[in-house]
Amino acid sequence: MLGKKQQLLIDTTQRLLRRDARASIRRIFDKTHPADLAAVISHFDNGRRDVLFHLIERIDERAEVLSEMLHENAAEFLATMPVPEIVELLKAMENDDAADLLARLPEDLSKQVLDAIGRRDAEDLGDLMKYGEDTAGGIMTTDFIALHENLNAQEAIETIRANKDVDMAFYTYVVNDHKQLVGVLSLRKLVIVSPETVLKQIMEPNVVSVRLHTDQEDVARTVARYNLLAIPVVNDNNVLEGIVTVDDVIDVIREEATEDILKMAGAGMELVETGNVTKSVRARFPWLLVSCIGELIGAAVISPFVGQLQTHHYLALFMPIIMAMGGNIGTQSATVIVRGLATGYVDPKRMMPVFWREIRVALALGATYGLIVGGVSFAFSGGDIAYGLSVATSMVLAMCIAVTVGTLLPIILEKLHVDPAVATGPFVTSAVDVLGLLVYFVVSTALISMVQG
Amino acid sequence: MLGKKQQLLIDTTQRLLRRDARASIRRIFDKTHPADLAAVISHFDNGRRDVLFHLIERIDERAEVLSEMLHENAAEFLATMPVPEIVELLKAMENDDAADLLARLPEDLSKQVLDAIGRRDAEDLGDLMKYGEDTAGGIMTTDFIALHENLNAQEAIETIRANKDVDMAFYTYVVNDHKQLVGVLSLRKLVIVSPETVLKQIMEPNVVSVRLHTDQEDVARTVARYNLLAIPVVNDNNVLEGIVTVDDVIDVIREEATEDILKMAGAGMELVETGNVTKSVRARFPWLLVSCIGELIGAAVISPFVGQLQTHHYLALFMPIIMAMGGNIGTQSATVIVRGLATGYVDPKRMMPVFWREIRVALALGATYGLIVGGVSFAFSGGDIAYGLSVATSMVLAMCIAVTVGTLLPIILEKLHVDPAVATGPFVTSAVDVLGLLVYFVVSTALISMVQG
Repeated sequence: MLGKKQQLLIDTTQRLLRRDARASIRRIFDKTHPADLAAVISHFDNGRRDVLFHLIERIDERAEVLSEMLHENAAEFLATMPVPEIVELLKAMENDDAADLLARLPEDLSKQVLDAIGRRDAEDLGDLMKYGEDTAGGIMTTDFIALHENLNAQEAIETIRANKDVDMAFYTYVVNDHKQLVGVLSLRKLVIVSPETVLKQIMEPNVVSVRLHTDQEDVARTVARYNLLAIPVVNDNNVLEGIVTVDDVIDVIREEATEDILKMAGAGMELVETGNVTKSVRARFPWLLVSCIGELIGAAVISPFVGQLQTHHYLALFMPIIMAMGGNIGTQSATVIVRGLATGYVDPKRMMPVFWREIRVALALGATYGLIVGGVSFAFSGGDIAYGLSVATSMVLAMCIAVTVGTLLPIILEKLHVDPAVATGPFVTSAVDVLGLLVYFVVSTALISMVQG
Repeated sequence: MLGKKQQLLIDTTQRLLRRDARASIRRIFDKTHPADLAAVISHFDNGRRDVLFHLIERIDERAEVLSEMLHENAAEFLATMPVPEIVELLKAMENDDAADLLARLPEDLSKQVLDAIGRRDAEDLGDLMKYGEDTAGGIMTTDFIALHENLNAQEAIETIRANKDVDMAFYTYVVNDHKQLVGVLSLRKLVIVSPETVLKQIMEPNVVSVRLHTDQEDVARTVARYNLLAIPVVNDNNVLEGIVTVDDVIDVIREEATEDILKMAGAGMELVETGNVTKSVRARFPWLLVSCIGELIGAAVISPFVGQLQTHHYLALFMPIIMAMGGNIGTQSATVIVRGLATGYVDPKRMMPVFWREIRVALALGATYGLIVGGVSFAFSGGDIAYGLSVATSMVLAMCIAVTVGTLLPIILEKLHVDPAVATGPFVTSAVDVLGLLVYFVVSTALISMVQG
C-alpha cells in the first residue's frame, strides 16, 4: 500500500512537474530514500518517468531506484534506454537484481547489453541467469566477502575495508584452499577479538547453508527458522557461490503468501501485478472449468430427483443454502489445513486428531444451523414436518461431509506431492456441492415418502 | 513444515529415549541448533518434554529453545516449572520474548515471577508488557546499543565490546543528551573510519523509525520497503525505546499472511494453532451466519419464481452451476483485489482500470462458459431453445455481476477502514448467489414466456 509519505511525494512531484520546477524536484529527490523514489517513479507514465528518473543525480542511486521498482516495470522502462546507459545502470546494481532485469529484457536487447558489458560482468550475470528464478541460485547475490581461514582478524578487517561496495557485510564467510565454505564469522566478533587471532580459531564451523538449486521457499523457511540475516549458497562440492540476504527472503515470503492466497481462490498466479486481460482469463479458466464440470456432474446426479419438484417445488428454495453452508465450512476446514501444512502446525502424519476436531466443529455448527434453517423451512412450507426435518438433517450431514472433504483433500494432495493450496478453491466447493445436494434430495425423498406413506 | 532434519532428530531422540540413553541424547542436543531443538521438544508430551529439556546443558541454550517454540506451548511448559527456574530462564532470554511468555502465564504465577525477578528486570518487562501485542512496542526488544553522538569511533567500538550479550549489533543507534534518536551507524562504518572520528560526523542522520504504538503490520512494511535489518522504536518525544529486528518482522509477515488467508475463507483467526473446538466454532459461527442470512434472503427473493419449476423442473438442475460459477469468479476478483490492496499493487484511488479489466475478463469467461453450459442445458431439456438461451444469458450476466461485487466490495470496505480481507468469504458469495439466482429466474421466466407467448 502507498503510505502517506509516498502519496505526499507523488502529489508534490506532480505539482512541481506541472510548473517544470526541475531544480526543486532534484532537491527533494536528493533527500528521498530510493525505495520511496521507486514508488514515485512507478506512478508516472513512461514519458514523465524518463524526465524524473534523470533528475536523480547519482548513477548508483538511479540503479537502486530501478532495483526497488517492480522488476516487470523496471525492465520495461530500462528497455526504452540506449544500450550504454543500460550497461552503466546494471553495473551499478547488485548483481542478482541486474541478472533478473536482464532476463526480462527483450532477447535481442539483452544480447546487446551482455556483449557491451565486459567479459567478467557478463560471465557473472550469465551464471546467475542460468539458475531457476525460484531457486537459491536465482535469488542469490555474488557480492559477498569470503575470507581464507588462515587470515587473522586484522587482515580480515582490512579486506572488509577494501571492499566498500559490498553492502551486506555483517557476516563474513570463511573458506579453505578449495574455496569451500568452512565457517562463518560476525563482523562483531572480528571487532571484539585481538587483531592477530586466526579466523579458523574464532569462526563458527556449523554454518547453515543451502544448495544452488534449493527452492526459494525452503531458503526462506531456513532463514526464518534460524533467524539469519543472510544464508550462504554452495554448489554440490560445498564451494561458496553466493549469499541470499534477508531482505530478499522477505520478498520471497510475501510472494509465496500471495501465490498461496491466489491459488486457494483458484485465481492462478501473477494476476495481481499485471493488467493483462488475456493472462487473467487464462489463469482463471481452468479453475472455472473444474467448477463447471463438477456442477454438471452435480446436475446429472440430482436429475433423477427433480421430478419431486413438480409436487414439492419449495424444495428448490433451500438448495442454495445447503450448498452455501457446506461450501463455506468446507472452505474453512480446507483453509485451516492448507495454512497449517504450510506453516508446520499441522503434521500430515498425525491427522486423526485434526480430523476429529473438524467433525466435532461441524456437528456443533451443523446442529445450530440445521435447527435455524430447518425451522424456517418448516414455516415456509406451511408447517410440513417432513420438509423441516429434511432440511435440518441435510444441513448437518452436508456440513459433516464438507469438513471431511475439506480436511482430507489437502492432505491427500500433500501426500501426492501436489501443492495443497489448489484444493481449497473449486475442488472442495464442487465436491461439497454435489455431495450436499445428493444428500438433500435423498433425505427429503425418503422423509417425504415416509410421512406420506 | 518439519524438515527432514527435524524429523530425523525426532526419530533418533525417540529411539534413544526408549533406551533411556540420556548421555547420547545430550551429545546430540549439544550439536543441535536451538530452533531444531524447539521442534524436537515440541513434539513430545509434557513428561518427556521435561526430561528432554533438562538434557540441554546451558541455561542460555534452554532459554533460546523456549523462545523458538510456539509461545503458547512454551508458556504452558514454563508454567509446569518452579518459580526460581522460570526466573532464571526469563532472565537469560531476549526480553521481548520474556515479556511475551510472562504475559501468557497464569496471572498469579506471572505475579510471583515478577516479584522474584528483581526490580530492574521487572520494570523492563512490565514496560514491554504494557504495549499492545500487535504494536512496535509489543514486539520490540530493549537489548540494543545506543551511543552518544559525541563519542568517537574508538570509544564506540569499546562500548560494543563491553556489551557482549547484545545480539543484534550490526546497527548502532546514535542519541543526543536527551536520549533522542539522531542517527544510525553500521558497525561496518565504525570499523572503516579512523578511530578518533566523532560519531556525529559519520552517522546517517536520516533514520527511519517507528513509534511505540505503530501497528506491527506497518512496522513490517517499513522494514521490508527500506530493506532494513532492524528498525528503532521511539516514543512521542523521539526518545529511543527499543528496536524491532528483522527476524521478528519475518514472523509478523507470516502471521499476517495466515490471518489474511483465514479471514478470506471466513475462518476467523487463531484457528490453525489451537486444537480447541469451542474456539473454532466461535470463530466460524459469524461467517456462516452471514451466509445463512444471505441465502435465506435468496430463498425469499426467488420464491415467487419457483412456481415455474412445476412446469419446468429442469430449471432447478442449473441453479447450482449458475451459483458456483458466479461464486468462483467473484471470489477470484475479490482475492486479486484484496491481495493487491495489501501488497500495494492496487491503488484504491485508481479503480476504474482495474474494474474494466475485471469486467472484460468476466465477459470473456462468461461467454465461453455460457456457450458450453447453455449447450448442455439445451440438450438436457430435449432441445428447448428458450431454456438453453436462459442458461447461457444468465451465466454471462451472473459472472459480470459477480466480478462487480467481488471488485467493489473490498474497495468499499477499504474506504470504510474495514479490513477488506473479510469481504472475499461469505459476503461476496452470498451476494453473488442471491443476485445470480435472481437474474437466472427473471431471464428464464421472460424468455420462456416470450417463446411460449
